[in-house]
Amino acid sequence: MEIDFQKSGGLVPVIIQDEHTSDVLMLGFMNAAALAETQRTGEVVFFSRSRNTLWKKGESSGHLLKVREVRVDCDADALLVRVKPVGPGVCHEGYRSCFFRSLQTDGKTKIIAKRVFDPEKIYRTEKKP
Amino acid sequence: MEIDFQKSGGLVPVIIQDEHTSDVLMLGFMNAAALAETQRTGEVVFFSRSRNTLWKKGESSGHLLKVREVRVDCDADALLVRVKPVGPGVCHEGYRSCFFRSLQTDGKTKIIAKRVFDPEKIYRTEKKP
Repeated sequence: MEIDFQKSGGLVPVIIQDEHTSDVLMLGFMNAAALAETQRTGEVVFFSRSRNTLWKKGESSGHLLKVREVRVDCDADALLVRVKPVGPGVCHEGYRSCFFRSLQTDGKTKIIAKRVFDPEKIYRTEKKP
Repeated sequence: MEIDFQKSGGLVPVIIQDEHTSDVLMLGFMNAAALAETQRTGEVVFFSRSRNTLWKKGESSGHLLKVREVRVDCDADALLVRVKPVGPGVCHEGYRSCFFRSLQTDGKTKIIAKRVFDPEKIYRTEKKP
């Protein structure tokens, strides 16, 4: 099956889901090379839109995402990667999931999770790109 | 909090997750108007990239997505909408989730779910845009 990388300019959105809790941890993007590298290594590799390069999740923090299953949607233009996360959390702000805020209808947000690590100690040299 | 619609040309990717099972049902896109309409009506409204217009999920099938919570990620450029789905499934191919196929490392796919409705009977006039 051919993944449709063309709809979003060579990229597909990739949902990262914890295989055990089914929590959605983050959303990233992959190009064909990132998907190939993810499949070759068994660890999630994204394409960083800001740095315009491949980006292994956890390369600086050690919080790698071990791939358990890759699913593809009906139109083959989005991926769902079920993972075993290494480390306490995936978010560069110190949370288990990047989706740690609830958006209210008035546009305000509310933090709905607890910090699980101190990002200052983990990301010494580099923030999430 | 301002949602960052600019990174993907006026759109943000939106993950739809079943509030009870935590299954990821589909991924769509919203522009600012789609998000406003989603929040106003309490039912998911996407922006259709192929039709270039707002698209209420379920408008033809009746399989609406009732919004239970909207979450936003750390960079405010992706949304996670937890929903109560109306109807047996969200996928225009008759499955509960659009992510009904597993992608193998050789590029082949394997169907990992069962059809829950007959799309020919539901989508009489219109397929998913």
